[in-house]
Amino acid sequence: MALTDEFSQERNLRVMARWRSTARVLVEALPYILKYDQKTIVVKFGGNAMAGGGTAADFAQDIVLMKQTGIDPVVVHGGGPQIGAMLSKLQIPSTFIDGLRVTDQAAIDVVEMVLTGSINKQIVSSINAAGGRAVGLSGKDSTLVLAKKLMKNGQDLGFVGEPEKINPEVLHTVMKAEMIPVIAPVGVGHEGETYNINADTVSGSIACAMKAERLILLTDVEGVLDHEKKLIPSLTVSEARELIRNGTIKGGMIPKIETAIEAVEGGVNAAVILDGRIPHVLLLELFTEHGAGTLITAG
Amino acid sequence: MALTDEFSQERNLRVMARWRSTARVLVEALPYILKYDQKTIVVKFGGNAMAGGGTAADFAQDIVLMKQTGIDPVVVHGGGPQIGAMLSKLQIPSTFIDGLRVTDQAAIDVVEMVLTGSINKQIVSSINAAGGRAVGLSGKDSTLVLAKKLMKNGQDLGFVGEPEKINPEVLHTVMKAEMIPVIAPVGVGHEGETYNINADTVSGSIACAMKAERLILLTDVEGVLDHEKKLIPSLTVSEARELIRNGTIKGGMIPKIETAIEAVEGGVNAAVILDGRIPHVLLLELFTEHGAGTLITAG
Amino acid sequence: MALTDEFSQERNLRVMARWRSTARVLVEALPYILKYDQKTIVVKFGGNAMAGGGTAADFAQDIVLMKQTGIDPVVVHGGGPQIGAMLSKLQIPSTFIDGLRVTDQAAIDVVEMVLTGSINKQIVSSINAAGGRAVGLSGKDSTLVLAKKLMKNGQDLGFVGEPEKINPEVLHTVMKAEMIPVIAPVGVGHEGETYNINADTVSGSIACAMKAERLILLTDVEGVLDHEKKLIPSLTVSEARELIRNGTIKGGMIPKIETAIEAVEGGVNAAVILDGRIPHVLLLELFTEHGAGTLITAG
Amino acid sequence: MALTDEFSQERNLRVMARWRSTARVLVEALPYILKYDQKTIVVKFGGNAMAGGGTAADFAQDIVLMKQTGIDPVVVHGGGPQIGAMLSKLQIPSTFIDGLRVTDQAAIDVVEMVLTGSINKQIVSSINAAGGRAVGLSGKDSTLVLAKKLMKNGQDLGFVGEPEKINPEVLHTVMKAEMIPVIAPVGVGHEGETYNINADTVSGSIACAMKAERLILLTDVEGVLDHEKKLIPSLTVSEARELIRNGTIKGGMIPKIETAIEAVEGGVNAAVILDGRIPHVLLLELFTEHGAGTLITAG
Amino acid sequence: MALTDEFSQERNLRVMARWRSTARVLVEALPYILKYDQKTIVVKFGGNAMAGGGTAADFAQDIVLMKQTGIDPVVVHGGGPQIGAMLSKLQIPSTFIDGLRVTDQAAIDVVEMVLTGSINKQIVSSINAAGGRAVGLSGKDSTLVLAKKLMKNGQDLGFVGEPEKINPEVLHTVMKAEMIPVIAPVGVGHEGETYNINADTVSGSIACAMKAERLILLTDVEGVLDHEKKLIPSLTVSEARELIRNGTIKGGMIPKIETAIEAVEGGVNAAVILDGRIPHVLLLELFTEHGAGTLITAG
Amino acid sequence: MALTDEFSQERNLRVMARWRSTARVLVEALPYILKYDQKTIVVKFGGNAMAGGGTAADFAQDIVLMKQTGIDPVVVHGGGPQIGAMLSKLQIPSTFIDGLRVTDQAAIDVVEMVLTGSINKQIVSSINAAGGRAVGLSGKDSTLVLAKKLMKNGQDLGFVGEPEKINPEVLHTVMKAEMIPVIAPVGVGHEGETYNINADTVSGSIACAMKAERLILLTDVEGVLDHEKKLIPSLTVSEARELIRNGTIKGGMIPKIETAIEAVEGGVNAAVILDGRIPHVLLLELFTEHGAGTLITAG
Repeated sequence: MALTDEFSQERNLRVMARWRSTARVLVEALPYILKYDQKTIVVKFGGNAMAGGGTAADFAQDIVLMKQTGIDPVVVHGGGPQIGAMLSKLQIPSTFIDGLRVTDQAAIDVVEMVLTGSINKQIVSSINAAGGRAVGLSGKDSTLVLAKKLMKNGQDLGFVGEPEKINPEVLHTVMKAEMIPVIAPVGVGHEGETYNINADTVSGSIACAMKAERLILLTDVEGVLDHEKKLIPSLTVSEARELIRNGTIKGGMIPKIETAIEAVEGGVNAAVILDGRIPHVLLLELFTEHGAGTLITAG
Repeated sequence: MALTDEFSQERNLRVMARWRSTARVLVEALPYILKYDQKTIVVKFGGNAMAGGGTAADFAQDIVLMKQTGIDPVVVHGGGPQIGAMLSKLQIPSTFIDGLRVTDQAAIDVVEMVLTGSINKQIVSSINAAGGRAVGLSGKDSTLVLAKKLMKNGQDLGFVGEPEKINPEVLHTVMKAEMIPVIAPVGVGHEGETYNINADTVSGSIACAMKAERLILLTDVEGVLDHEKKLIPSLTVSEARELIRNGTIKGGMIPKIETAIEAVEGGVNAAVILDGRIPHVLLLELFTEHGAGTLITAG
Repeated sequence: MALTDEFSQERNLRVMARWRSTARVLVEALPYILKYDQKTIVVKFGGNAMAGGGTAADFAQDIVLMKQTGIDPVVVHGGGPQIGAMLSKLQIPSTFIDGLRVTDQAAIDVVEMVLTGSINKQIVSSINAAGGRAVGLSGKDSTLVLAKKLMKNGQDLGFVGEPEKINPEVLHTVMKAEMIPVIAPVGVGHEGETYNINADTVSGSIACAMKAERLILLTDVEGVLDHEKKLIPSLTVSEARELIRNGTIKGGMIPKIETAIEAVEGGVNAAVILDGRIPHVLLLELFTEHGAGTLITAG
Repeated sequence: MALTDEFSQERNLRVMARWRSTARVLVEALPYILKYDQKTIVVKFGGNAMAGGGTAADFAQDIVLMKQTGIDPVVVHGGGPQIGAMLSKLQIPSTFIDGLRVTDQAAIDVVEMVLTGSINKQIVSSINAAGGRAVGLSGKDSTLVLAKKLMKNGQDLGFVGEPEKINPEVLHTVMKAEMIPVIAPVGVGHEGETYNINADTVSGSIACAMKAERLILLTDVEGVLDHEKKLIPSLTVSEARELIRNGTIKGGMIPKIETAIEAVEGGVNAAVILDGRIPHVLLLELFTEHGAGTLITAG
Repeated sequence: MALTDEFSQERNLRVMARWRSTARVLVEALPYILKYDQKTIVVKFGGNAMAGGGTAADFAQDIVLMKQTGIDPVVVHGGGPQIGAMLSKLQIPSTFIDGLRVTDQAAIDVVEMVLTGSINKQIVSSINAAGGRAVGLSGKDSTLVLAKKLMKNGQDLGFVGEPEKINPEVLHTVMKAEMIPVIAPVGVGHEGETYNINADTVSGSIACAMKAERLILLTDVEGVLDHEKKLIPSLTVSEARELIRNGTIKGGMIPKIETAIEAVEGGVNAAVILDGRIPHVLLLELFTEHGAGTLITAG
Repeated sequence: MALTDEFSQERNLRVMARWRSTARVLVEALPYILKYDQKTIVVKFGGNAMAGGGTAADFAQDIVLMKQTGIDPVVVHGGGPQIGAMLSKLQIPSTFIDGLRVTDQAAIDVVEMVLTGSINKQIVSSINAAGGRAVGLSGKDSTLVLAKKLMKNGQDLGFVGEPEKINPEVLHTVMKAEMIPVIAPVGVGHEGETYNINADTVSGSIACAMKAERLILLTDVEGVLDHEKKLIPSLTVSEARELIRNGTIKGGMIPKIETAIEAVEGGVNAAVILDGRIPHVLLLELFTEHGAGTLITAG
């Protein structure tokens, strides 16, 4: 039905234009909501990202919106600068091997305390404040992350571990109750010992155990860049391997890509390296057709 | 984390602005999605509205999006010009009493056929094409609308009826299976006779029987206007009654407002008279804070 | 315990005889009720059969009784003379290819309207009047019958289709709620276009999709006759094929037998060609040991 | 559709007549099946009735048919002549007070053994042979019938009891699994002692605890007769009380009527005194409109 | 926290020692409770065992405790001396073939009556008195034990049978309702005839049908003894076979061991021959690490 | 069955005596297991208690055993000396008002970190090591403990709070999955601020919200002592109030008794002040008839 002259006088044209634009965004989101309905999406939220004022609140809002539109989000967080700060305040000295911190008993106690008692609770609080119902978990809860010592080139780094087995029952329980699990990257060994585990690695293992639709690794770079420093929007696993081999991907991006590859090969539908600095980047990635970040698929 | 200069060079500023605007819309929708989660919303979709090209598809998209965000929509449609056209093609003459068409046996057969066999199926098809799963129902299905003859000022209008009892089991069944019921305003009498019922009335009765969160009556006017022809954004039941009494509300708007009042008094949380000419007005009404249409609440 | 003389005086002997006869019928029905408990039986109810006064009511009673004794009936109905009558009233001319009516857009609109808006609602009403809870469905509802164009000897007959895929969720939903689905033989194509499909064919496809215990095709002949015009009570699939080959089965019975064969080969336990002219023939077929009609089994 | 001459030649008229009569019986049963669907009916099957050859098998068939048509039957049986026979074989002497047998420890052991170990198992077997799934229960199973000593005019009759409390969980469990409970009228006291209880009384108490639709007491008389020895088809509770008061009802019928009255006042919809000598009298009572026996309702 | 002097004066040292001992027992039971949680354990309770005063009550307590700690116990009982006593009281003579009693119709009636009407009810009562909810069952209930005639060396022993098929639905039903089935070793043939079956055999067949965690055969000997008359705590199936072959196991122990072997080979995790003379031997076997009896496993 | 001489030679008498004693303990536990089946028991585990070596492991074993016997335990833990130690290590100075520590932002961050990130995880680990499945929770998880500032005599103690509302959904979720919640006494305010709450108070509020069967407060004293320093085994609420009034109960015991009284008045069946220094005192309290501690009931 055409809008009559009389009508266009009634309404401010500007308002109508804004409505059209708003409607367009909502409508564009529709097929994506259909696509992700009832799917599990594991999001790694980095330690650096948490420091910023607005980002944590934006992130929390995004997670709650995901939940409300039918997605089952699982959050895994890192540690970042808070751990180092607390170790230093407590004057626990660190030794390093090949640039990696050796984590002794005194250090692991602090690591666990900061990760599960401080950072984890902040994220839980943010999500609850945004209207969700978050539940903080450590790898010890119901033995979610059974871990073993990680040996790096034959060197003993102390209580640094890697996942041996994920027991996802507690996640299913929490998610079935429409709650959002927030996981600190701490594992427990066969003798009850505590392990610090890389948060990317934990998120990848959990995504595999949950047969997640997607693993999203939030970082503070744009994504994978080609040799002209331009963003590569998507890669197959074999293309990604080739880019590592030929040196296009390098430095800190390599372990992230390796986590993504392992996840995809372990049954996760796709992994994304996403620029966490963009406000509400999760919503943009999931509900619009733009191209922030790099998508890795089986190919 | 502030975006560095380097970063702003990486990204086109225009893209960033669009992202911000997109994110704002998605984020604004969040509290509304929370608010309507698992709630039933009955939408009356008028016969006139269906004639237009884009409107029906827009409407279907909106209904599917509502479903996907956790709302349980129930659609009731009217008949409109198609019935008159078919009666005239079949050369079934109409007599009128006080301007109301008398519906005899020949006419009610055509009315039912057009409503349930033509219009209803078009809407079902549109919703399915938009990715939903619609199921067309008539008031006869599982005796959804048990009806009785409507007497207007003591005049017998033939097979024109009003709801006597709603049996909502078939709606609960369809909705529990994540399907969307689309209801033609046809009722069935105690002797199995067919009744044509005003679609606004049917939608109101069904909204009451479902204890709906909201009854939305789509019309082709802006909403309720005050004596200066300006839109009244919200009314309590008693304010609405006063506006009828003092003549501010008049003509075809009166029965709509009466339906809204009965719904609110019958247990529906709120009713809205909404301008169906605005594209995607359902999304705008439900997921944004603007003010299309008039909201009637208990006050 | 023998009935004493005194007792036989108390009771009228005639009453006792009637009781015995009544009890015998009820008791004979017992093993059949056991046999069909919780089983799905698809019944094709023909257009011709519906014209008669008593038959439709008898049919409805039979369907309700089936439901009450634990059977899950699914009704598929045809169109019959009503469609032709309406096309002619609306002066929509028909062209024919090899004796088959070409269905153009104008015609398919009428076909759908009559099937889903008129005939379907009559059957729903009859079943409800008999105490059941029927729900009318078209192939469009929840995309129950996804269809494609039927090509007959390379000729394009317009919107005449055949089932491509049955999506039976809506049937399971309706049946789990103890309601009886009544299906009009209309399908929907990939582009949302409407197709008229032969009702026997639809009933066969649905019986396969439901892994029905039995497909019953009600006709207006006795069943399959041998060369001496005597009823053949049962046939295996290979015997049926031989009778087609040698010309014993001919004319309109051939497509019915082919539907029966496809159903049996598609997982339906047995198909029956049954004489719909006999009052309550469904009850007689299901609950007694007589021999109306022809049973086709895998052999 | 009228049957053509040709058709009437095809079919033997006699066969058609039988079919009509058969269909009539099945059709008449329909409204009753609707009426009793999902309802619990408690049937007291007397000791005398069991002695007859055909009766027990008829009774079993009737119970299975009831189950298959959606009724939930509960059988309570009596003891009858078998107990006396066994006591006499074992030479356990009986003393009597006011014509009532005093049941000492030796006697109650035999009573329980015969009721639960012999008669109960025969009935279970008969029902299973008729295609049902019966489960024999005693009042001791899951403490179904908690009993206390019955004092008759201040006289101690030994282990003769009356129900103190029914614990119906085991019945619900068995019935939910689509099995048929068959209950021996034995109760258990607070100290674990065994009580023999009148089977009519047990059936009445269980009917109350189950809020049964109907309590059916099978007897070997026609029902309640008026002073002209003619059967009274139905009575209200107050009419029944008046007939006891004025002496129309007398002798062994008095306790049966009292059981019926208590049941109706305890929440059972209606009670029936039914002539168990008529073959398949349960089917006739439940599924036809005849008038064997006397119905007692609240009035 | 060390107990202070003051504290040790407060408490009697003797009390503390008893507490420690009590706590030790409870704590030791923990891993076993974990191990058997939700597992089915079939216990054969022999006729001889029931004669004793205390044993039956002890047994009942043990069964109830098993249930309360999460085990699903199933009790199968034997007949023992009560059957012989009743046959003799009723002066039913017995003939013997190779030392086995021939069971004619008169005898089987008595056997069933005593087993299901007397012994079964005593055990049900004992378990209820100990706080459990027992339900007595015979092989006839819901045709739990479909049996056939047992031919022994070509000799016809009358109504002595062996299980042909176990229909465990009634057990699942009873157990899901948190009740304890108590089964009399009576089977029913295809023609409804009654069979007496060896209770060990019945318990073995039921353990297989339930895929039980354990079959426990209570006897009145210590277990399997080696050639020095010392108890053998555990045997594999092949070791057990060898001990039969070489004559170490002989006499009445042979059929028990054969039942154990068949159970283990039929899917039961392990079978135990246990000394029923030790008070509460079931608790000791299940919840402590001692060594009463002989365990047979697949090896 | 008497044990024969031969038998007593077979068995070591000492072994038999131990078996008898073991059986006695297990049997005595039976009625208690029945009593607590499916009941919720909230246990406050104090900070002091955790310091000891054996106690924490004993406590964990007891909790797992409770779970396995059908009890639903909920653990609330305190903080104890660890918090003070960490505050001092981090050189966060404390000011005191009336002997109560004022908790500022810096202090509450440490309190939360130690409670939820260190102590909570130790207890979770202990329970998992004992074979249970524990899930650590803070009052922030799913907003389990919504808190408000606690004003003490008009003095502002900073982030010291008291429960305003318990949202127990997360507890129900965890418990329905057969997991054991372990709760740190941290609450969250309306603005997302963190509050330290007395652990006794939290356990009492949670016991009320769960309608717990029992609230157990583990302490390091014997229980409530009378004026002769002898343990009072049980008190009614009014007796307890009188003992506070007359000065018999004094000091740190007063708030504990007040928590117990509030719990009992808030719907908890009973509260117990229990001596946590006794090894496995939970098992002794729940599963034996001895008298450690003081029971407070409504009276």
